[in-house]
Amino acid sequence: MSRTYTVGQLADIVGGKVRGDAAIVIQGVADVSEAGPTDATWVNREKYADKLKSSRAGTVLIPTDFGETRMPAILCEKIEPSVAKLLGAFASPVSRPETGIHPSAVIHPSARIGANPSIGPHVVIDADVSIGSSCVIHAGVFIGRGTMIGDDCLLWPNVVIRDGCRLGHRVNIHPNSVIGSDGFGYYFDQGRHNKIPHVGGAILEDDVEIGACTCVDRSKFGHTVVGAGTKIDNLVQVAHNVRIGRHCVLVGQTGFAGSVRTGDYCVFGGRSCALDNVAIGDRVTVAGLAIVDKDIPDGLMVSGFPARDHREELRERALVRRLPKLVEQLKELIHRVEQLEASTHHNP
Amino acid sequence: MSRTYTVGQLADIVGGKVRGDAAIVIQGVADVSEAGPTDATWVNREKYADKLKSSRAGTVLIPTDFGETRMPAILCEKIEPSVAKLLGAFASPVSRPETGIHPSAVIHPSARIGANPSIGPHVVIDADVSIGSSCVIHAGVFIGRGTMIGDDCLLWPNVVIRDGCRLGHRVNIHPNSVIGSDGFGYYFDQGRHNKIPHVGGAILEDDVEIGACTCVDRSKFGHTVVGAGTKIDNLVQVAHNVRIGRHCVLVGQTGFAGSVRTGDYCVFGGRSCALDNVAIGDRVTVAGLAIVDKDIPDGLMVSGFPARDHREELRERALVRRLPKLVEQLKELIHRVEQLEASTHHNP
Amino acid sequence: MSRTYTVGQLADIVGGKVRGDAAIVIQGVADVSEAGPTDATWVNREKYADKLKSSRAGTVLIPTDFGETRMPAILCEKIEPSVAKLLGAFASPVSRPETGIHPSAVIHPSARIGANPSIGPHVVIDADVSIGSSCVIHAGVFIGRGTMIGDDCLLWPNVVIRDGCRLGHRVNIHPNSVIGSDGFGYYFDQGRHNKIPHVGGAILEDDVEIGACTCVDRSKFGHTVVGAGTKIDNLVQVAHNVRIGRHCVLVGQTGFAGSVRTGDYCVFGGRSCALDNVAIGDRVTVAGLAIVDKDIPDGLMVSGFPARDHREELRERALVRRLPKLVEQLKELIHRVEQLEASTHHNP
Repeated sequence: MSRTYTVGQLADIVGGKVRGDAAIVIQGVADVSEAGPTDATWVNREKYADKLKSSRAGTVLIPTDFGETRMPAILCEKIEPSVAKLLGAFASPVSRPETGIHPSAVIHPSARIGANPSIGPHVVIDADVSIGSSCVIHAGVFIGRGTMIGDDCLLWPNVVIRDGCRLGHRVNIHPNSVIGSDGFGYYFDQGRHNKIPHVGGAILEDDVEIGACTCVDRSKFGHTVVGAGTKIDNLVQVAHNVRIGRHCVLVGQTGFAGSVRTGDYCVFGGRSCALDNVAIGDRVTVAGLAIVDKDIPDGLMVSGFPARDHREELRERALVRRLPKLVEQLKELIHRVEQLEASTHHNP
Repeated sequence: MSRTYTVGQLADIVGGKVRGDAAIVIQGVADVSEAGPTDATWVNREKYADKLKSSRAGTVLIPTDFGETRMPAILCEKIEPSVAKLLGAFASPVSRPETGIHPSAVIHPSARIGANPSIGPHVVIDADVSIGSSCVIHAGVFIGRGTMIGDDCLLWPNVVIRDGCRLGHRVNIHPNSVIGSDGFGYYFDQGRHNKIPHVGGAILEDDVEIGACTCVDRSKFGHTVVGAGTKIDNLVQVAHNVRIGRHCVLVGQTGFAGSVRTGDYCVFGGRSCALDNVAIGDRVTVAGLAIVDKDIPDGLMVSGFPARDHREELRERALVRRLPKLVEQLKELIHRVEQLEASTHHNP
Repeated sequence: MSRTYTVGQLADIVGGKVRGDAAIVIQGVADVSEAGPTDATWVNREKYADKLKSSRAGTVLIPTDFGETRMPAILCEKIEPSVAKLLGAFASPVSRPETGIHPSAVIHPSARIGANPSIGPHVVIDADVSIGSSCVIHAGVFIGRGTMIGDDCLLWPNVVIRDGCRLGHRVNIHPNSVIGSDGFGYYFDQGRHNKIPHVGGAILEDDVEIGACTCVDRSKFGHTVVGAGTKIDNLVQVAHNVRIGRHCVLVGQTGFAGSVRTGDYCVFGGRSCALDNVAIGDRVTVAGLAIVDKDIPDGLMVSGFPARDHREELRERALVRRLPKLVEQLKELIHRVEQLEASTHHNP
């Protein structure tokens, strides 16, 4: 965070246009309410205009149609990509082991390591592993027999990738996650649970990112698949034989039971869940904490337990909230009917 | 997966009988709808007969009472054990470090290691640890002071077993799991939470299997116990002083709070939960996502939050679904009562 | 557990007063119903008096106002601190690597290590790391570039702390947890999710304790903060930019989404959850499994999904339980109205 830019330089970096003094010096990034005179901040909706009025930020990234600001502004066509570039301008380069292979790494002679590796201390790479070029493999990572890894992958410390898995290019796995561990499969016979062998592996396609302490199990047969560009957060469970489509998002603590399938561009909110064998279409949004227990067609937004059309679930929740009033109405009505009955008896 | 068998050889392996051409060559296993002419598949219920009709599989494992099939079949008395054997026929042998002790492993001179060990790189075994014969201990595993481990155990990379724990024979622990970490216990005094020492350890009895990134905490006193033959999936929390019976199953993301006790042959569905101190009988089935907040007698199937008899919970959920209709009925009834009241007033 | 004390010695240790024979010899600690003649136990409420009547314990810790007991008793002003001291008297000293730095540890020459370290095998400490005095760092721990750690910290095996983080004094992190991993942030552009750099780190203040397999993500900017004295259990997710106050408790499997803020002295029950950006006051208690989806003022106890005042939620749950009766009442009332209508028609 010791970098320094002028507002003009930052505008070039984020692809925006300066309005006001381009010579102001910026040294960091902060929230609109906490930014000081040497910080850049951003506001992406008019409704935060109030917060910006009292902000002491040195400059602010705003959409091109945003109103006046008290400090120099950088007008951006799309605010999100520009903010990402702003953060990138102040980010340290990704930490990595020194180029080469650390002498304490244990690499099987049959493993093939591509050009320009950065392999840290105490890494273990088993027989017949193949690793592409320019991979960064941090300390304590284990890669099992026969696993194949593409170019430019980034494996953080203590990640375990078991035997027979495949990673595409630019796959990024955060610390202490486990890829290709045995699926949870037993058959019950003679009073005990007997293990079902898992012949298949796990495939993470290009540009997949996996959070910390997340598990993607290997498959009974065929492969567990995470499609290209899909991003998975921390502490997520992906069971055996799951097939996740491309460019999906699974937020923290989500769980997929065995053989779940999804299309592309799905979003699973935090701690949502899909029960075994459900098939989910393309562009489905599953709200946080929702439990998907049956197939979902393309494009639906679902929520609740069991997950159903989000609007329907909101109506149902509202009705549950109205229960006390319902009980009251019923009670009153019983009283009125009793009175009617009394007057009818008196009045035959 | 480069192995090759004839249908006749596979029938011998899985303990079934061939119907049709026993000479067909099989090279793999696949799902009924994806299998090709060199794949074996299986169908375990008549209702999948349709799928099998269009399958291109080279052979199919079926129950003995299953009807005609278009490809050679292997008739099996019990389909599940036979399928497990089929998968086993194509499974690679379990990956393991070379026999012996890797020179980078750090083993305390007071530790006792049984015959025929396979101890991988960077393993750490502390003072007074005792390990049985034929154990496979993968890279990066840590075993704390005084822990005792039986024969034929399999510890995957980066597993941590802290001091004072006990594992029986044939215990299998998947990567990055933690056994015997401190229980979560504090007492509040003088404005802060003060740690309660945990004197006890954790015991995993014979044939226990523990998934990846799962935690079994040590005990305040006595021991946390996982009974023989019990299988625990990934990302499961087993808190201090819990005692799980024999041959239970805990599916992914399940959580047991402190001092929970279960009988034998219980099943806990995915992400189910038992609150502290509840006592659960034998052969109890807890549905996925159910929250057990009180004792459950033997043999019950429970679901919901709080968990209760599954049939009762289904009725309740159905009623919630009928709420809109209920509101409608009540509204209509109010109208009818109003009319009655009006006519009674007009008609005294 | 091979230590031996007289009841009199234990009374001194736990700060209580002996009633009865102070010479009895005690060798362990056990539950009131399992304790034998050489075990100490405790009872903290009159309602357990019955269990104590049949207990074979050698001595019992009781509150000063507790009644007669059949065995020598130790009367304690506050039972919980005394029980913690009792357990401490039988606890083994915390297991730790030998004093000094194990030769297999890989420590960057620019790292500064304080006095009296215990650094175990295969530890990796990156450039510009600073570590205070008397820290215990177990096998396989990774500490990333520029991270600063105070005095008397305890890092269990295979913990990963990434670059640019800060730990106060006496911080205790259990095995396989991850501090400072990337937050889960992307912007969607041109058909794919693009990573947002995370410039900030994570700060764990003095006396923070973190369970096993727990994740505290780094921040987009500024820092993710866990306040002094806060205790976090296993398998907990703390997302980017979260700020947790001082002396809070987060029980197992809890999840905090991005930018959640809490005051001091809050308690989050097991598997509770706070959605992104909610602000929670001081001394708030969130029941286990509750989902906080909006701001909560100081001092409230909330439960349910969405979390609301606990008493309100209990009433609502009770009403749902009464639904079958409600349906019955409505049905009966419809019948009565029909009869009234019939008699009114007959009786114009």
